[in-house]
Amino acid sequence: MLDTSNPGLRIKTVQKLREGFELKEDLVATEEPLEIVLVYNKNNKPVYKTISITMRTPGDDENLVRGFLFTEGILLHPTKEINGFEYRFSCQGDVVEQQTILVHLKPEAYPNIDQLDRHFYTNSSCGVCGKTSIDLVLDNCSFLLKKESPLVTNKTLFSLMDTLTKDQRLFQLTGGIHACGLFDTDGNLLDKAEDVGRHNALDKLIGKALMNEFIPLDDKIILLSGRASFEMIHKACMAGTAVVAAVGAPSSLAVETAEAMGMSLIGFLKAGSANIYCGAQRIHIL
Amino acid sequence: MLDTSNPGLRIKTVQKLREGFELKEDLVATEEPLEIVLVYNKNNKPVYKTISITMRTPGDDENLVRGFLFTEGILLHPTKEINGFEYRFSCQGDVVEQQTILVHLKPEAYPNIDQLDRHFYTNSSCGVCGKTSIDLVLDNCSFLLKKESPLVTNKTLFSLMDTLTKDQRLFQLTGGIHACGLFDTDGNLLDKAEDVGRHNALDKLIGKALMNEFIPLDDKIILLSGRASFEMIHKACMAGTAVVAAVGAPSSLAVETAEAMGMSLIGFLKAGSANIYCGAQRIHIL
Repeated sequence: MLDTSNPGLRIKTVQKLREGFELKEDLVATEEPLEIVLVYNKNNKPVYKTISITMRTPGDDENLVRGFLFTEGILLHPTKEINGFEYRFSCQGDVVEQQTILVHLKPEAYPNIDQLDRHFYTNSSCGVCGKTSIDLVLDNCSFLLKKESPLVTNKTLFSLMDTLTKDQRLFQLTGGIHACGLFDTDGNLLDKAEDVGRHNALDKLIGKALMNEFIPLDDKIILLSGRASFEMIHKACMAGTAVVAAVGAPSSLAVETAEAMGMSLIGFLKAGSANIYCGAQRIHIL
Repeated sequence: MLDTSNPGLRIKTVQKLREGFELKEDLVATEEPLEIVLVYNKNNKPVYKTISITMRTPGDDENLVRGFLFTEGILLHPTKEINGFEYRFSCQGDVVEQQTILVHLKPEAYPNIDQLDRHFYTNSSCGVCGKTSIDLVLDNCSFLLKKESPLVTNKTLFSLMDTLTKDQRLFQLTGGIHACGLFDTDGNLLDKAEDVGRHNALDKLIGKALMNEFIPLDDKIILLSGRASFEMIHKACMAGTAVVAAVGAPSSLAVETAEAMGMSLIGFLKAGSANIYCGAQRIHIL
């Protein structure tokens, strides 16, 4: 019997095509829209502001929201500034799902709404380019990384993927979901998150890290199950992460951003090999 | 020697970590922002409207723009409505790159700017949910798929990945890029596109298909090198695609959208096996 108590899983009937057809039921990862609405007072009147509609895998929505608001620079201290969450349910379909999450802010909260209304790049004098993108990340990031001496051994690095895989439940069931893991420098898994969107998985992980007061992650490792793009490194930078290790390849702008931030970026991480694109001083060879 | 004449490739120095360190040069896929600006006349005055800033792999930018404007429902006939492209170069860095593309529209063009200003979901009476997302795709799509009889054989399906891989140059060099291929029902590769962003790869492919007057793709197959998310199926729907085959897993909403459109959606495509999530009537077993 397929377990469907997890909101991240849906059963679909599938034709397994080998030599011929075979009709089976299969689990796929759930993807559903979530509307994030900030609720705050302005001139003694409540303001409802839709911040984003994101396609995500249900589950851990509050941490997704905390992480998203933090990594996008909208709230500097989500755990202190958020008063509570409220859900709106929609549609009269078979399944009633929460699809709108109202984020009630405390009176003293200071949401950087301009970050949304104004275009990310309008502050820039020289237009849109890779360098501008990197500068904007550095400007928005609250943390500075020290050029540290060895923080993690090659053996610990090589063990991370195995640790995360053992714990990656939705992937095992669906084969189709991104995962992120947060590790200490001894390779202990502190937290993990899964989502069909890799940026959502990372936001969920950073949301949990905020709740556990782990931020800045300047003595931690984030493991990404996929590739490292600019967007992922941007989010990791916002959380002050020392080491990002990806199972897949990094992009040029991911490497350049990690370099500018002083982060250690590792790609193509396997059990016995890896490529270090920058910040090799944090890796200690045993 | 590493070839860097391709704008989609960047050389990075990398520490290859095996037993110890080894310093090498490696190629990574280029990721750079592209600002897309529509230019058109309103009341005899030129309007410059930034439509999107997307992180993409340089190369084939004009097809990316054509495909993006089409799959997002902003232009119904990009090849007829676009008068020409103009580039703006930025920064005084080492490399001068085109990072802004001005899309000059013909006077008779009819850009659906509302699609941008107004929120995708504001038309919906029942709020944000999966069903609304699917309905909006169907409403925006100009094409209808017939419930066709067999269109492609299992053997042809099984051959697609091999054909695309042979031709996937940036992936071979970087191991870190998404690819899409457009095939006829005999398995001949008509076109392909690569990008660090899978949605960009698909937009580039659809942009080329527009130029080649292949749209609607109701007798064609699109192959995706990664997973099939809602966003990818949405774009394929807008191009009236009969069959989408993905090497990775589909999400729940991808399956539901393909089903509603009457598209054939195949996941986990390998040389000798595949899962058909919907539209199995188009697959002929030999």
